[in-house]
Amino acid sequence: MKRNRLLSSLIGWVLAVNLCLAQNKAVVFQSDFGLKDGAVSAMKGVAFGVSPDLRLFDLTHEIPAYNIWEAAYRLQQTAPYWPAGTVFVSVVDPGVGSARKSVVLKTRSGHYFVTPDNGTLTLVAPLLGIESVREIDEAVNRRRDSGKSYTFHGRDVYAYTAARLAAGTITFEQVGPELAKEVVRIPHQPPVFEKGLIKGSIPVLDIQYGNIWTNIGEDTFRKLSIKHGDVLNVRIRKGAQTVFDGKMPFVSTFASVPEGSNLAYLNSLLNLSFAVNMGNFSEHHKVYSGPEWVVEVSR
Amino acid sequence: MKRNRLLSSLIGWVLAVNLCLAQNKAVVFQSDFGLKDGAVSAMKGVAFGVSPDLRLFDLTHEIPAYNIWEAAYRLQQTAPYWPAGTVFVSVVDPGVGSARKSVVLKTRSGHYFVTPDNGTLTLVAPLLGIESVREIDEAVNRRRDSGKSYTFHGRDVYAYTAARLAAGTITFEQVGPELAKEVVRIPHQPPVFEKGLIKGSIPVLDIQYGNIWTNIGEDTFRKLSIKHGDVLNVRIRKGAQTVFDGKMPFVSTFASVPEGSNLAYLNSLLNLSFAVNMGNFSEHHKVYSGPEWVVEVSR
Amino acid sequence: MKRNRLLSSLIGWVLAVNLCLAQNKAVVFQSDFGLKDGAVSAMKGVAFGVSPDLRLFDLTHEIPAYNIWEAAYRLQQTAPYWPAGTVFVSVVDPGVGSARKSVVLKTRSGHYFVTPDNGTLTLVAPLLGIESVREIDEAVNRRRDSGKSYTFHGRDVYAYTAARLAAGTITFEQVGPELAKEVVRIPHQPPVFEKGLIKGSIPVLDIQYGNIWTNIGEDTFRKLSIKHGDVLNVRIRKGAQTVFDGKMPFVSTFASVPEGSNLAYLNSLLNLSFAVNMGNFSEHHKVYSGPEWVVEVSR
Repeated sequence: MKRNRLLSSLIGWVLAVNLCLAQNKAVVFQSDFGLKDGAVSAMKGVAFGVSPDLRLFDLTHEIPAYNIWEAAYRLQQTAPYWPAGTVFVSVVDPGVGSARKSVVLKTRSGHYFVTPDNGTLTLVAPLLGIESVREIDEAVNRRRDSGKSYTFHGRDVYAYTAARLAAGTITFEQVGPELAKEVVRIPHQPPVFEKGLIKGSIPVLDIQYGNIWTNIGEDTFRKLSIKHGDVLNVRIRKGAQTVFDGKMPFVSTFASVPEGSNLAYLNSLLNLSFAVNMGNFSEHHKVYSGPEWVVEVSR
Repeated sequence: MKRNRLLSSLIGWVLAVNLCLAQNKAVVFQSDFGLKDGAVSAMKGVAFGVSPDLRLFDLTHEIPAYNIWEAAYRLQQTAPYWPAGTVFVSVVDPGVGSARKSVVLKTRSGHYFVTPDNGTLTLVAPLLGIESVREIDEAVNRRRDSGKSYTFHGRDVYAYTAARLAAGTITFEQVGPELAKEVVRIPHQPPVFEKGLIKGSIPVLDIQYGNIWTNIGEDTFRKLSIKHGDVLNVRIRKGAQTVFDGKMPFVSTFASVPEGSNLAYLNSLLNLSFAVNMGNFSEHHKVYSGPEWVVEVSR
Repeated sequence: MKRNRLLSSLIGWVLAVNLCLAQNKAVVFQSDFGLKDGAVSAMKGVAFGVSPDLRLFDLTHEIPAYNIWEAAYRLQQTAPYWPAGTVFVSVVDPGVGSARKSVVLKTRSGHYFVTPDNGTLTLVAPLLGIESVREIDEAVNRRRDSGKSYTFHGRDVYAYTAARLAAGTITFEQVGPELAKEVVRIPHQPPVFEKGLIKGSIPVLDIQYGNIWTNIGEDTFRKLSIKHGDVLNVRIRKGAQTVFDGKMPFVSTFASVPEGSNLAYLNSLLNLSFAVNMGNFSEHHKVYSGPEWVVEVSR
């Protein structure tokens, strides 16, 4: 019966739409492009052209130019708070045109990362677990009309591939050939506990406030058996040169110490951090971030 | 009949979708986090995880660190232009961990404001009217997995609660217990008219252009019986110290005066403002904003 | 039969929704407002109030204050990467209140541009082709409640009209009366090839990296018969004063030259550009952008 067939095809259509709406379809962009020119918008235009149903978000575009390490840190800081199925695009690519591979990492948590494999995945790969890595086959996954003389990879390959993956235009398998389950990693000093002393480094600052964020996680920190209100000895070195050496209480809220006083706390990633209540620890004590910085903490 | 039941359930589903699309579902974020790290994106990830149907927007994340007064001003400047049902999240929270309450204000205009009640609602509450204030019950309205040792309130409580409210996951009543119909207000000099003299203050600058925005609204200003082209005497003090004292015409368009000349006008909020045509009044005359600034205007 | 009528109206509704989802409904905002206050958010609130189905994006809001030329350049850089049907709003409007017209340009490519006609369309009009220009009839296309004493045109006219056009609330014809097929253009030095010498200008910098982007397109550049690896003579003048005079290789990737070396390349718009590998050409050589800059290139 015609009406019956119409009805079932209608139901099928409605279910398909429903299923489709139930998908994630989110793309989160990160780059060192800044927000002053049209580069970010061009990437989003390409993604929107792939499918108007995509949801396009930003992590940050203020990664300092060419700073792969900070790009790696921002992904780690943010990705866990997005639901499984979210596709991240990170374009900090000083080696554009060199031998670095263009890849998509699928993590065990179900997140996707579309990026040059140049160290950007250093922190997020072990945090969320490597499910599979595929190299982007640019013969297929590249914006049409691109690549005459020059390809803007962020727009023509990364944003385009991420959008097609998020929209379901291609499957993860259609990204390109599978690689070994590994990513390029930037060497960095891990947090250690030894003879009553914790060592770690300062991967980034909480720049808006000038707080110092270490890579010393709660589990390592707890080995000092510190409780709120206890006083810590903190030494901060840049290589061999001591830049800060002092005592400060470990507190749960900034308001626990007077304005202008130093304090130690666990930040929103549960890493040991240092701040000045209502002030800027970094500017005041000339402490910055990067692999050459070392933090030593004891009771 | 089975087909009939199918049909009606289908119609019910379609109506539900329709109704659902008719809802506002918009969340507008404001903070002093800046755009350089992952904090804003983490908030949005949490909101998107609550419901992929939400529409996530920004007011600004460039509120100067800890500047509750400017946060209050930006809400007042912007909220009236968003439709009823919009949920605002404002996280400028120097007292995080202190006794300030986490609240949701519902205004008589039908807007919602999710924020620490620390003065952020000073201006928007009287402007849009207090319908009801509820304290966020963090036992219920807090992101799962959060709060081990530290809670990032912006992400784990404010963004999470705002998203659930906007998505209809919880009703306004389910936010938490109702409080008195009042909010914490920052004292500030109101605009007054007395003996031919208008006094007011400078809540913020129009920073991009360096224009001076006073809190003297059109209704107060009109008491001087000024019309376009008339010349005003303007004195601007910081406490007792006069910083600017001069005359300028009241105009409807910047182009009414030569480039480089001072002018007075009503800004987009219909407040009396001062500018230099094609220039920067603030930098040129060293006039800034804050509660200590006083403006005196006469014919 | 009632059931039949219900069914067909249901099918009609579903098709209408489908059609509706197939529309573009995207608005892309550009301005010189910056991101520190509520102006951009007020524009988006007004647009969202017109229709919650709109997709609202940003090009940039960091156009230097009053810099119409850069606004023109950013539109040209970005618009081609957005699909047909996208509505752009550009508000860089030093002459607000003066005689400049408020227009909507429809290009032959099917893009729409809502803006004061003050030179903003200089580059995008010839690039995408003028299909039709209409003047916004502010008697109809102006936000209700606006215009008491002052109109914030970006919010009350441009964002409002763009949103109504993108949402299908009004047709292009309902924008207002049709004008001649022309736009106000800012005079600028075109790229020329003569006797083995190419001349052009520097419309903008790639500011995040300090690269120099000329207006010399691939077609003009190819007249020098240069291939990758060849060395160019490059002279850059500000008016009569030579600021840079040197040789550099034409390469396809930055990594082709040592860190700190100058290089020439075709940028993502396929225009001849100059850079320092891992460095900042503009800061290093004191070369900036604007109509007074001239570039001369030979073999």
